[in-house]
Amino acid sequence: MKIGVFDSGFGGLTVLRELLRVVPDATYLYLGDTARLPYGSKSAATVARYAVSSSRFLLERGAQFLVIACNTATALALDEIKQAASVPVIGVVEPGASAAAAITRTGNVDVIGTPATVASHAYAKSLQSKGIEAVEKACPLVEEGWIDHPVTEQVARICLEELQLFGPLAHVERERRPDVLLLGCTHYPLLEPLLRRLLPKEISLVDSAASTAQVVAKELRDSEQPTSKLGTPEIRFFATDSVEKFRALGERFLGKRIEKVELISLPE
Amino acid sequence: MKIGVFDSGFGGLTVLRELLRVVPDATYLYLGDTARLPYGSKSAATVARYAVSSSRFLLERGAQFLVIACNTATALALDEIKQAASVPVIGVVEPGASAAAAITRTGNVDVIGTPATVASHAYAKSLQSKGIEAVEKACPLVEEGWIDHPVTEQVARICLEELQLFGPLAHVERERRPDVLLLGCTHYPLLEPLLRRLLPKEISLVDSAASTAQVVAKELRDSEQPTSKLGTPEIRFFATDSVEKFRALGERFLGKRIEKVELISLPE
Repeated sequence: MKIGVFDSGFGGLTVLRELLRVVPDATYLYLGDTARLPYGSKSAATVARYAVSSSRFLLERGAQFLVIACNTATALALDEIKQAASVPVIGVVEPGASAAAAITRTGNVDVIGTPATVASHAYAKSLQSKGIEAVEKACPLVEEGWIDHPVTEQVARICLEELQLFGPLAHVERERRPDVLLLGCTHYPLLEPLLRRLLPKEISLVDSAASTAQVVAKELRDSEQPTSKLGTPEIRFFATDSVEKFRALGERFLGKRIEKVELISLPE
Repeated sequence: MKIGVFDSGFGGLTVLRELLRVVPDATYLYLGDTARLPYGSKSAATVARYAVSSSRFLLERGAQFLVIACNTATALALDEIKQAASVPVIGVVEPGASAAAAITRTGNVDVIGTPATVASHAYAKSLQSKGIEAVEKACPLVEEGWIDHPVTEQVARICLEELQLFGPLAHVERERRPDVLLLGCTHYPLLEPLLRRLLPKEISLVDSAASTAQVVAKELRDSEQPTSKLGTPEIRFFATDSVEKFRALGERFLGKRIEKVELISLPE
Protein backbone atom coordinates (compact mmCIF):
# COMPACT_ATOMS: atom_id res chain seq x y z
CA MET A 1 0.00 0.00 0.00
CA LYS A 2 1.42 3.31 -1.10
CA ILE A 3 0.04 6.29 0.81
CA GLY A 4 0.47 9.83 -0.48
CA VAL A 5 0.54 12.54 2.17
CA PHE A 6 0.30 16.15 1.09
CA ASP A 7 0.69 19.49 2.83
CA SER A 8 1.63 23.00 1.76
CA GLY A 9 4.76 22.66 3.89
CA PHE A 10 5.95 20.91 7.00
CA GLY A 11 2.89 20.75 9.24
CA GLY A 12 1.60 17.62 7.53
CA LEU A 13 4.63 15.80 8.89
CA THR A 14 2.82 15.73 12.25
CA VAL A 15 0.15 13.64 10.49
CA LEU A 16 2.80 11.45 8.86
CA ARG A 17 4.37 10.89 12.28
CA GLU A 18 1.06 9.50 13.56
CA LEU A 19 0.52 7.45 10.40
CA LEU A 20 3.90 5.79 10.90
CA ARG A 21 2.71 4.67 14.33
CA VAL A 22 -0.65 3.21 13.34
CA VAL A 23 0.05 2.13 9.75
CA PRO A 24 3.73 1.24 9.88
CA ASP A 25 3.53 -1.37 7.15
CA ALA A 26 3.00 1.00 4.21
CA THR A 27 5.11 2.94 1.75
CA TYR A 28 4.77 6.72 2.08
CA LEU A 29 5.19 9.57 -0.35
CA TYR A 30 5.19 12.94 1.40
CA LEU A 31 4.93 16.14 -0.62
CA GLY A 32 5.42 19.60 0.87
CA ASP A 33 4.53 22.33 -1.64
CA THR A 34 7.01 24.64 0.06
CA ALA A 35 7.58 26.92 -2.95
CA ARG A 36 3.96 28.06 -2.86
CA LEU A 37 3.25 28.08 0.88
CA PRO A 38 1.46 29.40 2.80
CA TYR A 39 -1.96 28.40 1.50
CA GLY A 40 -3.80 29.87 4.48
CA SER A 41 -3.95 33.45 3.25
CA LYS A 42 -4.81 32.65 -0.37
CA SER A 43 -8.08 32.35 -2.28
CA ALA A 44 -10.08 29.14 -2.57
CA ALA A 45 -9.43 29.01 -6.32
CA THR A 46 -5.67 29.26 -5.93
CA VAL A 47 -5.57 26.78 -3.04
CA ALA A 48 -7.64 24.31 -5.08
CA ARG A 49 -5.36 24.67 -8.10
CA TYR A 50 -2.25 24.08 -5.97
CA ALA A 51 -3.79 21.20 -4.02
CA VAL A 52 -4.99 19.44 -7.14
CA SER A 53 -1.62 19.75 -8.90
CA SER A 54 0.09 18.46 -5.75
CA SER A 55 -2.33 15.54 -5.47
CA ARG A 56 -1.82 14.67 -9.13
CA PHE A 57 1.91 14.46 -8.53
CA LEU A 58 1.38 11.91 -5.74
CA LEU A 59 -1.07 9.92 -7.87
CA GLU A 60 1.39 9.86 -10.77
CA ARG A 61 3.96 8.46 -8.37
CA GLY A 62 1.61 5.60 -7.60
CA ALA A 63 -0.23 6.73 -4.45
CA GLN A 64 -3.16 4.36 -3.80
CA PHE A 65 -4.53 6.46 -0.96
CA LEU A 66 -4.33 10.22 -0.40
CA VAL A 67 -4.11 11.98 2.93
CA ILE A 68 -4.62 15.75 2.68
CA ALA A 69 -2.59 16.68 5.76
CA CYS A 70 -3.28 20.39 5.40
CA ASN A 71 -6.27 22.06 7.00
CA THR A 72 -6.53 24.84 4.44
CA ALA A 73 -6.40 22.46 1.46
CA THR A 74 -8.94 20.18 3.13
CA ALA A 75 -11.28 23.02 4.06
CA LEU A 76 -11.16 24.69 0.64
CA ALA A 77 -10.44 21.96 -1.87
CA LEU A 78 -11.33 18.46 -0.62
CA ASP A 79 -14.11 18.07 -3.18
CA GLU A 80 -11.88 19.18 -6.07
CA ILE A 81 -9.14 16.79 -4.95
CA LYS A 82 -11.61 13.90 -4.70
CA GLN A 83 -12.86 14.68 -8.20
CA ALA A 84 -9.31 14.61 -9.53
CA ALA A 85 -8.40 11.37 -7.74
CA SER A 86 -9.50 7.80 -8.43
CA VAL A 87 -8.28 6.60 -5.02
CA PRO A 88 -9.67 7.19 -1.50
CA VAL A 89 -8.98 10.68 -0.15
CA ILE A 90 -9.01 11.63 3.54
CA GLY A 91 -8.69 15.18 4.85
CA VAL A 92 -7.92 16.42 8.33
CA VAL A 93 -11.01 18.51 9.10
CA GLU A 94 -13.55 15.73 9.69
CA PRO A 95 -11.25 13.60 11.91
CA GLY A 96 -10.21 16.69 13.88
CA ALA A 97 -13.82 17.76 14.41
CA SER A 98 -14.76 14.22 15.46
CA ALA A 99 -11.93 14.10 17.99
CA ALA A 100 -12.99 17.44 19.46
CA ALA A 101 -16.65 16.37 19.58
CA ALA A 102 -15.68 13.19 21.41
CA ILE A 103 -13.81 15.08 24.09
CA THR A 104 -15.92 18.15 24.86
CA ARG A 105 -18.30 17.92 27.82
CA THR A 106 -19.70 21.43 27.54
CA GLY A 107 -20.50 21.12 23.83
CA ASN A 108 -18.48 24.27 23.14
CA VAL A 109 -15.28 24.10 21.12
CA ASP A 110 -12.91 26.89 20.08
CA VAL A 111 -11.01 26.49 16.82
CA ILE A 112 -7.89 28.31 15.65
CA GLY A 113 -6.80 28.13 12.03
CA THR A 114 -5.55 30.08 9.03
CA PRO A 115 -7.65 32.96 7.68
CA ALA A 116 -8.75 30.78 4.74
CA THR A 117 -9.74 27.81 6.90
CA VAL A 118 -11.69 30.02 9.28
CA ALA A 119 -13.40 31.87 6.42
CA SER A 120 -14.56 28.55 4.97
CA HIS A 121 -16.24 27.61 8.28
CA ALA A 122 -15.39 23.99 7.49
CA TYR A 123 -14.79 23.23 11.17
CA ALA A 124 -17.87 25.04 12.44
CA LYS A 125 -20.05 23.21 9.92
CA SER A 126 -18.58 19.82 10.76
CA LEU A 127 -18.86 20.42 14.51
CA GLN A 128 -22.39 21.76 14.17
CA SER A 129 -23.43 18.57 12.39
CA LYS A 130 -22.29 16.75 15.53
CA GLY A 131 -24.29 19.05 17.83
CA ILE A 132 -21.25 21.07 18.91
CA GLU A 133 -21.15 24.85 18.93
CA ALA A 134 -17.86 26.28 17.64
CA VAL A 135 -16.16 29.66 17.73
CA GLU A 136 -13.46 29.97 15.07
CA LYS A 137 -10.58 32.40 15.19
CA ALA A 138 -7.99 33.16 12.50
CA CYS A 139 -4.52 33.20 13.98
CA PRO A 140 -1.74 34.75 11.91
CA LEU A 141 1.11 32.40 11.23
CA VAL A 142 4.52 33.89 11.44
CA GLU A 143 6.97 32.59 8.88
CA GLU A 144 8.26 29.05 9.02
CA GLY A 145 11.23 28.59 11.26
CA TRP A 146 10.19 31.12 13.90
CA ILE A 147 8.83 28.43 16.17
CA ASP A 148 11.00 29.41 19.12
CA HIS A 149 10.91 33.13 18.41
CA PRO A 150 9.46 35.42 21.09
CA VAL A 151 7.13 36.76 18.37
CA THR A 152 5.43 33.38 18.21
CA GLU A 153 4.64 33.46 21.92
CA GLN A 154 3.20 36.96 21.53
CA VAL A 155 1.03 35.82 18.62
CA ALA A 156 -0.23 32.91 20.68
CA ARG A 157 -0.95 35.11 23.70
CA ILE A 158 -2.90 37.61 21.62
CA CYS A 159 -4.94 34.92 19.86
CA LEU A 160 -5.79 33.11 23.07
CA GLU A 161 -6.62 36.40 24.73
CA GLU A 162 -9.06 37.25 21.94
CA LEU A 163 -10.72 33.90 22.56
CA GLN A 164 -10.75 34.73 26.29
CA LEU A 165 -8.73 31.57 26.93
CA PHE A 166 -5.79 33.55 28.29
CA GLY A 167 -5.34 36.83 30.11
CA PRO A 168 -7.59 38.74 32.48
CA LEU A 169 -10.84 37.37 31.02
CA ALA A 170 -9.76 33.72 30.95
CA HIS A 171 -11.21 32.86 34.34
CA VAL A 172 -14.29 35.06 34.29
CA GLU A 173 -17.54 33.08 34.60
CA ARG A 174 -19.34 33.03 31.24
CA GLU A 175 -22.38 31.35 29.80
CA ARG A 176 -20.48 29.73 26.96
CA ARG A 177 -17.79 27.53 28.41
CA PRO A 178 -15.48 26.03 25.75
CA ASP A 179 -13.41 23.17 27.11
CA VAL A 180 -11.57 22.19 23.92
CA LEU A 181 -9.20 24.19 21.74
CA LEU A 182 -9.05 22.51 18.34
CA LEU A 183 -5.80 23.19 16.48
CA GLY A 184 -7.09 23.70 12.96
CA CYS A 185 -3.70 24.00 11.31
CA THR A 186 -1.07 21.28 11.25
CA HIS A 187 1.54 23.84 12.24
CA TYR A 188 0.16 24.31 15.67
CA PRO A 189 1.09 20.94 17.22
CA LEU A 190 4.66 22.21 17.46
CA LEU A 191 3.33 25.02 19.63
CA GLU A 192 1.54 22.65 22.02
CA PRO A 193 3.99 23.12 24.91
CA LEU A 194 3.62 26.88 24.60
CA LEU A 195 -0.18 26.75 24.28
CA ARG A 196 -0.44 24.31 27.18
CA ARG A 197 1.53 26.72 29.34
CA LEU A 198 -0.79 29.63 28.50
CA LEU A 199 -4.14 27.82 28.66
CA PRO A 200 -6.26 27.17 31.76
CA LYS A 201 -5.88 23.53 32.72
CA GLU A 202 -9.56 22.72 32.07
CA ILE A 203 -9.08 23.35 28.34
CA SER A 204 -8.10 20.26 26.32
CA LEU A 205 -5.96 20.64 23.22
CA VAL A 206 -7.00 18.58 20.22
CA ASP A 207 -5.19 18.32 16.92
CA SER A 208 -6.20 16.31 13.91
CA ALA A 209 -2.96 14.41 13.36
CA ALA A 210 -3.70 11.40 15.57
CA SER A 211 -7.38 11.16 14.67
CA THR A 212 -6.66 11.44 10.95
CA ALA A 213 -4.14 8.61 11.22
CA GLN A 214 -6.75 6.50 13.04
CA VAL A 215 -9.31 7.13 10.31
CA VAL A 216 -6.78 6.12 7.64
CA ALA A 217 -5.93 2.93 9.55
CA LYS A 218 -9.61 2.06 9.88
CA GLU A 219 -10.32 2.68 6.18
CA LEU A 220 -7.44 0.45 5.20
CA ARG A 221 -8.65 -2.31 7.53
CA ASP A 222 -12.23 -1.95 6.27
CA SER A 223 -11.18 -2.12 2.65
CA GLU A 224 -8.80 -4.97 3.48
CA GLN A 225 -6.12 -3.29 1.45
CA PRO A 226 -2.99 -5.39 1.50
CA THR A 227 -0.14 -3.46 3.08
CA SER A 228 3.41 -4.41 2.29
CA LYS A 229 4.96 -6.30 5.15
CA LEU A 230 8.13 -4.32 5.42
CA GLY A 231 10.13 -4.22 8.61
CA THR A 232 10.30 -0.42 8.56
CA PRO A 233 8.13 1.94 6.57
CA GLU A 234 9.65 3.32 3.42
CA ILE A 235 9.23 7.09 3.06
CA ARG A 236 10.10 9.37 0.18
CA PHE A 237 10.02 13.11 0.73
CA PHE A 238 9.37 15.64 -2.02
CA ALA A 239 9.48 19.42 -1.77
CA THR A 240 9.05 22.26 -4.25
CA ASP A 241 11.49 24.63 -2.50
CA SER A 242 14.85 24.21 -0.73
CA VAL A 243 15.47 20.59 0.26
CA GLU A 244 17.98 21.70 2.93
CA LYS A 245 15.35 23.81 4.62
CA PHE A 246 12.84 20.99 4.34
CA ARG A 247 15.20 18.61 6.05
CA ALA A 248 16.13 21.03 8.83
CA LEU A 249 12.60 22.22 9.63
CA GLY A 250 10.88 18.97 8.73
CA GLU A 251 12.76 16.96 11.31
CA ARG A 252 11.21 19.08 14.03
CA PHE A 253 7.71 18.29 12.80
CA LEU A 254 8.37 14.63 12.06
CA GLY A 255 10.34 14.02 15.24
CA LYS A 256 12.93 11.93 13.43
CA ARG A 257 15.77 12.18 10.96
CA ILE A 258 15.03 12.95 7.33
CA GLU A 259 17.83 11.55 5.20
CA LYS A 260 16.86 12.66 1.75
CA VAL A 261 14.44 15.12 0.16
CA GLU A 262 13.82 15.29 -3.58
CA LEU A 263 13.28 18.68 -5.22
CA ILE A 264 10.44 18.68 -7.72
CA SER A 265 8.53 21.31 -9.65
CA LEU A 266 4.78 21.27 -10.14
CA PRO A 267 2.79 22.71 -13.02
CA GLU A 268 0.75 25.83 -12.29
CA MET B 1 7.02 54.89 -22.04
CA LYS B 2 5.62 51.74 -20.51
CA ILE B 3 7.07 50.88 -17.10
CA GLY B 4 6.63 47.42 -15.58
CA VAL B 5 6.63 47.29 -11.79
CA PHE B 6 6.86 43.94 -10.09
CA ASP B 7 6.51 42.71 -6.51
CA SER B 8 5.56 39.44 -4.85
CA GLY B 9 2.49 41.19 -3.51
CA PHE B 10 1.33 44.60 -2.45
CA GLY B 11 4.43 46.24 -0.98
CA GLY B 12 5.67 47.30 -4.40
CA LEU B 13 2.67 49.60 -4.62
CA THR B 14 4.53 51.95 -2.26
CA VAL B 15 7.14 52.21 -5.01
CA LEU B 16 4.48 52.72 -7.67
CA ARG B 17 2.95 55.48 -5.55
CA GLU B 18 6.28 57.34 -5.62
CA LEU B 19 6.75 56.66 -9.33
CA LEU B 20 3.37 58.23 -10.06
CA ARG B 21 4.61 61.39 -8.37
CA VAL B 22 7.95 61.73 -10.13
CA VAL B 23 7.18 60.05 -13.47
CA PRO B 24 3.49 60.82 -13.93
CA ASP B 25 3.63 60.84 -17.73
CA ALA B 26 4.12 57.10 -18.25
CA THR B 27 1.99 54.01 -18.64
CA TYR B 28 2.36 51.49 -15.81
CA LEU B 29 1.91 47.75 -15.60
CA TYR B 30 1.96 46.52 -12.01
CA LEU B 31 2.20 42.80 -11.27
CA GLY B 32 1.74 41.32 -7.78
CA ASP B 33 2.62 37.61 -7.73
CA THR B 34 0.18 37.12 -4.87
CA ALA B 35 -0.44 33.42 -5.46
CA ARG B 36 3.18 32.61 -4.66
CA LEU B 37 3.96 35.15 -1.97
CA PRO B 38 5.79 35.52 0.31
CA TYR B 39 9.18 35.32 -1.38
CA GLY B 40 11.08 36.29 1.76
CA SER B 41 11.23 32.85 3.34
CA LYS B 42 12.02 30.95 0.16
CA SER B 43 15.26 29.83 -1.48
CA ALA B 44 17.24 31.92 -3.95
CA ALA B 45 16.53 29.44 -6.74
CA THR B 46 12.76 29.57 -6.22
CA VAL B 47 12.71 33.36 -5.85
CA ALA B 48 14.73 33.71 -9.05
CA ARG B 49 12.39 31.39 -10.95
CA TYR B 50 9.32 33.30 -9.77
CA ALA B 51 10.88 36.72 -10.36
CA VAL B 52 12.03 35.84 -13.87
CA SER B 53 8.63 34.44 -14.88
CA SER B 54 6.96 37.55 -13.45
CA SER B 55 9.37 39.83 -15.30
CA ARG B 56 8.79 37.93 -18.55
CA PHE B 57 5.07 38.55 -18.20
CA LEU B 58 5.65 42.30 -17.94
CA LEU B 59 8.06 42.26 -20.90
CA GLU B 60 5.54 40.33 -23.01
CA ARG B 61 3.00 43.01 -22.19
CA GLY B 62 5.36 45.59 -23.63
CA ALA B 63 7.24 46.95 -20.61
CA GLN B 64 10.18 49.08 -21.79
CA PHE B 65 11.60 49.52 -18.32
CA LEU B 66 11.43 47.16 -15.33
CA VAL B 67 11.27 48.18 -11.69
CA ILE B 68 11.80 45.28 -9.28
CA ALA B 69 9.83 46.75 -6.39
CA CYS B 70 10.55 43.80 -4.10
CA ASN B 71 13.57 43.67 -1.85
CA THR B 72 13.78 39.89 -1.78
CA ALA B 73 13.60 39.55 -5.56
CA THR B 74 16.16 42.34 -5.97
CA ALA B 75 18.52 40.90 -3.38
CA LEU B 76 18.35 37.35 -4.70
CA ALA B 77 17.57 37.60 -8.38
CA LEU B 78 18.47 40.98 -9.89
CA ASP B 79 21.20 39.46 -12.08
CA GLU B 80 18.93 36.70 -13.37
CA ILE B 81 16.20 39.22 -14.15
CA LYS B 82 18.66 41.46 -16.00
CA GLN B 83 19.86 38.48 -18.03
CA ALA B 84 16.27 37.65 -18.99
CA ALA B 85 15.40 41.24 -19.90
CA SER B 86 16.46 43.33 -22.87
CA VAL B 87 15.29 46.55 -21.21
CA PRO B 88 16.73 48.56 -18.29
CA VAL B 89 16.09 46.96 -14.89
CA ILE B 90 16.19 48.81 -11.56
CA GLY B 91 15.90 47.14 -8.18
CA VAL B 92 15.20 48.66 -4.77
CA VAL B 93 18.33 47.66 -2.83
CA GLU B 94 20.85 50.05 -4.35
CA PRO B 95 18.57 53.13 -4.18
CA GLY B 96 17.59 52.26 -0.60
CA ALA B 97 21.21 51.84 0.46
CA SER B 98 22.15 55.11 -1.23
CA ALA B 99 19.37 56.95 0.56
CA ALA B 100 20.47 55.56 3.92
CA ALA B 101 24.11 56.38 3.21
CA ALA B 102 23.17 59.95 2.35
CA ILE B 103 21.35 60.45 5.63
CA THR B 104 23.48 58.73 8.27
CA ARG B 105 25.88 60.91 10.23
CA THR B 106 27.31 58.17 12.44
CA GLY B 107 28.05 55.84 9.51
CA ASN B 108 26.03 53.10 11.21
CA VAL B 109 22.79 51.85 9.68
CA ASP B 110 20.42 49.12 10.88
CA VAL B 111 18.47 47.19 8.26
CA ILE B 112 15.33 45.09 8.71
CA GLY B 113 14.18 42.73 5.98
CA THR B 114 12.90 39.27 5.17
CA PRO B 115 14.99 36.24 6.16
CA ALA B 116 16.04 35.77 2.51
CA THR B 117 17.05 39.41 2.01
CA VAL B 118 19.05 39.44 5.22
CA ALA B 119 20.71 36.10 4.42
CA SER B 120 21.84 37.50 1.06
CA HIS B 121 23.56 40.45 2.78
CA ALA B 122 22.70 42.53 -0.28
CA TYR B 123 22.15 45.62 1.87
CA ALA B 124 25.26 45.16 4.00
CA LYS B 125 27.39 44.75 0.88
CA SER B 126 25.92 47.78 -0.83
CA LEU B 127 26.25 49.92 2.30
CA GLN B 128 29.78 48.69 2.93
CA SER B 129 30.78 49.77 -0.58
CA LYS B 130 29.67 53.26 0.46
CA GLY B 131 31.71 53.16 3.68
CA ILE B 132 28.71 52.47 5.90
CA GLU B 133 28.61 49.75 8.53
CA ALA B 134 25.34 47.86 8.62
CA VAL B 135 23.65 45.48 11.03
CA GLU B 136 20.91 43.45 9.37
CA LYS B 137 18.03 41.78 11.15
CA ALA B 138 15.41 39.42 9.77
CA CYS B 139 11.96 40.43 10.92
CA PRO B 140 9.14 37.91 10.53
CA LEU B 141 6.26 39.17 8.45
CA VAL B 142 2.85 38.25 9.68
CA GLU B 143 0.35 37.47 6.98
CA GLU B 144 -0.92 40.14 4.65
CA GLY B 145 -3.85 42.04 5.99
CA TRP B 146 -2.78 42.00 9.64
CA ILE B 147 -1.36 45.50 9.40
CA ASP B 148 -3.50 46.83 12.24
CA HIS B 149 -3.40 43.65 14.29
CA PRO B 150 -1.88 43.84 17.79
CA VAL B 151 0.40 40.99 16.70
CA THR B 152 2.08 43.32 14.24
CA GLU B 153 2.93 45.80 16.96
CA GLN B 154 4.38 43.00 19.07
CA VAL B 155 6.49 41.80 16.16
CA ALA B 156 7.77 45.32 15.62
CA ARG B 157 8.55 45.79 19.31
CA ILE B 158 10.49 42.54 19.51
CA CYS B 159 12.48 43.25 16.34
CA LEU B 160 13.38 46.76 17.41
CA GLU B 161 14.26 45.52 20.89
CA GLU B 162 16.64 42.95 19.41
CA LEU B 163 18.31 45.79 17.52
CA GLN B 164 18.40 47.76 20.80
CA LEU B 165 16.38 50.53 19.12
CA PHE B 166 13.46 50.03 21.50
CA GLY B 167 13.05 48.91 25.08
CA PRO B 168 15.35 49.13 28.10
CA LEU B 169 18.56 49.08 26.03
CA ALA B 170 17.47 51.69 23.49
CA HIS B 171 18.97 54.62 25.33
CA VAL B 172 22.06 52.97 26.78
CA GLU B 173 25.28 54.60 25.60
CA ARG B 174 27.05 52.31 23.10
CA GLU B 175 30.06 52.53 20.88
CA ARG B 176 28.11 51.75 17.71
CA ARG B 177 25.40 54.36 17.28
CA PRO B 178 23.08 53.65 14.36
CA ASP B 179 21.02 56.67 13.39
CA VAL B 180 19.12 55.19 10.45
CA LEU B 181 16.73 52.27 10.26
CA LEU B 182 16.52 51.12 6.65
CA LEU B 183 13.24 49.39 5.81
CA GLY B 184 14.49 46.59 3.60
CA CYS B 185 11.06 45.25 2.67
CA THR B 186 8.42 47.20 0.77
CA HIS B 187 5.83 46.07 3.31
CA TYR B 188 7.29 48.07 6.09
CA PRO B 189 6.37 51.59 4.90
CA LEU B 190 2.81 50.85 6.01
CA LEU B 191 4.19 50.33 9.49
CA GLU B 192 6.00 53.67 9.55
CA PRO B 193 3.60 55.35 12.00
CA LEU B 194 3.97 52.40 14.36
CA LEU B 195 7.77 52.25 14.00
CA ARG B 196 8.06 56.02 14.40
CA ARG B 197 6.12 55.76 17.66
CA LEU B 198 8.44 53.06 19.02
CA LEU B 199 11.80 54.45 17.85
CA PRO B 200 13.96 57.04 19.62
CA LYS B 201 13.58 60.35 17.82
CA GLU B 202 17.25 60.46 16.74
CA ILE B 203 16.71 57.43 14.47
CA SER B 204 15.70 58.28 10.89
CA LEU B 205 13.50 55.90 8.95
CA VAL B 206 14.48 55.29 5.33
CA ASP B 207 12.62 53.23 2.79
CA SER B 208 13.58 52.60 -0.78
CA ALA B 209 10.32 53.63 -2.45
CA ALA B 210 11.07 57.32 -2.92
CA SER B 211 14.75 56.85 -3.79
CA THR B 212 13.96 54.08 -6.29
CA ALA B 213 11.44 56.33 -8.01
CA GLN B 214 14.06 59.11 -8.17
CA VAL B 215 16.58 56.73 -9.76
CA VAL B 216 14.02 55.66 -12.35
CA ALA B 217 13.17 59.29 -13.15
CA LYS B 218 16.84 60.12 -13.56
CA GLU B 219 17.50 57.12 -15.82
CA LEU B 220 14.59 58.10 -18.04
CA ARG B 221 15.83 61.68 -18.25
CA ASP B 222 19.40 60.55 -18.99
CA SER B 223 18.28 58.17 -21.72
CA GLU B 224 15.92 60.83 -23.03
CA GLN B 225 13.20 58.23 -23.34
CA PRO B 226 10.06 59.79 -24.72
CA THR B 227 7.23 59.52 -22.23
CA SER B 228 3.68 59.70 -23.38
CA LYS B 229 2.13 63.04 -22.60
CA LEU B 230 -1.00 61.81 -20.96
CA GLY B 231 -2.95 63.93 -18.56
CA THR B 232 -3.10 61.17 -15.96
CA PRO B 233 -0.97 58.08 -15.80
CA GLU B 234 -2.52 54.92 -17.10
CA ILE B 235 -2.07 51.94 -14.78
CA ARG B 236 -2.98 48.30 -15.28
CA PHE B 237 -2.88 45.97 -12.30
CA PHE B 238 -2.27 42.23 -12.56
CA ALA B 239 -2.36 39.66 -9.76
CA THR B 240 -1.95 35.88 -9.60
CA ASP B 241 -4.35 35.40 -6.67
CA SER B 242 -7.68 36.94 -5.65
CA VAL B 243 -8.29 40.27 -7.41
CA GLU B 244 -10.76 41.31 -4.68
CA LYS B 245 -8.09 40.93 -2.02
CA PHE B 246 -5.59 42.76 -4.21
CA ARG B 247 -7.93 45.68 -4.58
CA ALA B 248 -8.81 45.85 -0.88
CA LEU B 249 -5.27 45.52 0.45
CA GLY B 250 -3.58 47.23 -2.47
CA GLU B 251 -5.43 50.50 -1.96
CA ARG B 252 -3.81 50.82 1.47
CA PHE B 253 -0.34 50.51 -0.02
CA LEU B 254 -1.02 52.67 -3.07
CA GLY B 255 -2.96 55.29 -1.15
CA LYS B 256 -5.60 55.60 -3.85
CA ARG B 257 -8.47 53.72 -5.44
CA ILE B 258 -7.77 50.68 -7.55
CA GLU B 259 -10.61 50.24 -10.03
CA LYS B 260 -9.70 47.04 -11.77
CA VAL B 261 -7.30 44.15 -11.26
CA GLU B 262 -6.73 41.44 -13.86
CA LEU B 263 -6.21 37.85 -12.71
CA ILE B 264 -3.41 36.10 -14.56
CA SER B 265 -1.52 32.85 -14.18
CA LEU B 266 2.22 32.51 -14.60
CA PRO B 267 4.17 29.46 -15.73
CA GLU B 268 6.22 27.70 -13.06
